[in-house]
Amino acid sequence: MCSTPAHRGDCCKRSNCQVNVFRCGDNPIIKPNDIKPSRDDFEVIGVFNPGVARFSKEVILLLRVAERPIQRDPNVVRVAFHDAASDAIVTKDIAKNIEADFSDPRLIVTPNATLLTSISHLKPARSEDGVHFRIEQDAALAAANEYESFGIEDARISLIDGTYYIDYVAVSPYGVSTALASTKDFRTFERHGVIFCPENKDVVLFPEKIHGRYYALHRPVSSLFSKHDIWISESPDLLCWGNHRRLMGRRDNSWDEAKIGASAVPFRTKAGWVEIYHGADRNNRYCLGAVLLDADQPWKVIARADQPILAPETDYECDGFFSNVVFSCGLILDQEKLNVYYGVADTSIAYAQITLDATMASLGL
Amino acid sequence: MCSTPAHRGDCCKRSNCQVNVFRCGDNPIIKPNDIKPSRDDFEVIGVFNPGVARFSKEVILLLRVAERPIQRDPNVVRVAFHDAASDAIVTKDIAKNIEADFSDPRLIVTPNATLLTSISHLKPARSEDGVHFRIEQDAALAAANEYESFGIEDARISLIDGTYYIDYVAVSPYGVSTALASTKDFRTFERHGVIFCPENKDVVLFPEKIHGRYYALHRPVSSLFSKHDIWISESPDLLCWGNHRRLMGRRDNSWDEAKIGASAVPFRTKAGWVEIYHGADRNNRYCLGAVLLDADQPWKVIARADQPILAPETDYECDGFFSNVVFSCGLILDQEKLNVYYGVADTSIAYAQITLDATMASLGL
Repeated sequence: MCSTPAHRGDCCKRSNCQVNVFRCGDNPIIKPNDIKPSRDDFEVIGVFNPGVARFSKEVILLLRVAERPIQRDPNVVRVAFHDAASDAIVTKDIAKNIEADFSDPRLIVTPNATLLTSISHLKPARSEDGVHFRIEQDAALAAANEYESFGIEDARISLIDGTYYIDYVAVSPYGVSTALASTKDFRTFERHGVIFCPENKDVVLFPEKIHGRYYALHRPVSSLFSKHDIWISESPDLLCWGNHRRLMGRRDNSWDEAKIGASAVPFRTKAGWVEIYHGADRNNRYCLGAVLLDADQPWKVIARADQPILAPETDYECDGFFSNVVFSCGLILDQEKLNVYYGVADTSIAYAQITLDATMASLGL
Repeated sequence: MCSTPAHRGDCCKRSNCQVNVFRCGDNPIIKPNDIKPSRDDFEVIGVFNPGVARFSKEVILLLRVAERPIQRDPNVVRVAFHDAASDAIVTKDIAKNIEADFSDPRLIVTPNATLLTSISHLKPARSEDGVHFRIEQDAALAAANEYESFGIEDARISLIDGTYYIDYVAVSPYGVSTALASTKDFRTFERHGVIFCPENKDVVLFPEKIHGRYYALHRPVSSLFSKHDIWISESPDLLCWGNHRRLMGRRDNSWDEAKIGASAVPFRTKAGWVEIYHGADRNNRYCLGAVLLDADQPWKVIARADQPILAPETDYECDGFFSNVVFSCGLILDQEKLNVYYGVADTSIAYAQITLDATMASLGL
């Protein structure tokens, strides 16, 4: 689908990637400067981690747009959040001299509360060639209730029986949960509430029923045991989920040694379901890799790649708001290629092509 | 139901309880010495937090029996866990001189793993008078799979359409989750898998459908926001749960200022659903208090008691393995009285009667 000149990434040489990656020559294809802030006193600090769908003849991305108030007073950090009572975005100033942890650029941790330094919403972008996107002015979905007061993030889009189901991370003082919405036209959207309660994110819905049941991958957090594993669950209706089973965990001394989570919506191959997931190492370096799940019993892991298929190597992947991150929420399988859209350094969006053959080879197939 | 001489608890005088509590004169009614260990090299260190049901003419408790290996070597802590591969309880010695945190008597936190100092199973006890219990030799349910390797804890029993549904906490290195089992006779039990994924406990199932849907209270944990709130969810089948909504949180400078969680199965009154929940303060003092939920829309809180209805005051409540704890997993409503069975100090089981009138009065009704 991409006719733009591509260059071959360096990752194969530098990190023992077994997969050829062809990054788009126009990368990053969408940057913060491409996005108009939602109000004059805000600035866009990131556009990343888009949900991906093919709709009619277009590729649609649901961009995660992260904004913050323009910082005018050097003595405070101004943060923004959605107030459910007034259904409005409001701002608050946090004095820099208070006892708070500002070390993670995404968070402000005070003794009484944890706040986010930005607030995200989901904005559609459309393209016919998969590279050049028209970005809409209005948000598709933005913070709208008490579960979303710190914003909504990281959409995954699954086309199931003619309806596009969009799950997204809902962040609020109540915790990090995952909510569901749906659309048939990417013009109007229906909300379906919280489908995975805190603390849970990185939810991907399988695009078809398996033996009469819907399936999802998700990433619950166990604080007591410091676990960030991928689980798989089933549902009769996409709204209620059960039979939760742990699918796979991190691996010591590997690219996914610290945290893992599902990334793209899984796709079916002759060998089984391929899931492109993300893993982070002890240095918070996020890569993408492949795992193969049984076609009929997707709670069974058949193969898991020793090496990532995409690792942060280029400048735009290595430097940004949160550096050394490639993080995908979706791809389009097209003519035996994975067209991967991915956030880079929590700042911009890049696009790369990876052949299905190379992906399967990374799984030893 | 209790004909044993009771004494009036001190809690009303000492902690502003607005409710009269009549503790059983035989308290604690079940103690660790009453339980035979499951093997000769183990000792029972606690029997507490029982699930409660009325079955035929009997009161049945599903005791949480906490055991540990008898400690013979002063240089090590011997722990026990279930090994799913061999389907057997195995032991492991942890050297006391390693870098580990032994400060919480329930846990051993090493740099690489968190372990429990005891392993629990669920054992039936039966009584005709509600005070004197015959304790069965065999467990009703014990650790049996990879989600239960550190034991199963804190059963809640809901009688729904003629079947007793037992949810219980399943603990393993994968996290703290909640699983479901069922029985019609308390002789044979059927397992139904994990219904709430980590980290989630304190699950109670409402005993009837409301407008065609099952409801549950639960207590997910958000590590990022340090939240331990009670949520309410709905289900078409008791197995899959969704439409997760946050019901209520802790209250500053109150008996429930630090953590809360559902305790007993809620019961219906003319005023709405009464839930007896537990709350802990900053000193880990656990009390029981009442909250009233709307009869038709149980996600709406109508009233919440300012004061607990039961607080640790007696010696057996104030001194034990984990002191200053009263913690109930069930009660029987009988002739306008709440017959509350509750764990004391994570050590033994006590029994108290509280009038429904007094409970409603604590809610301002």
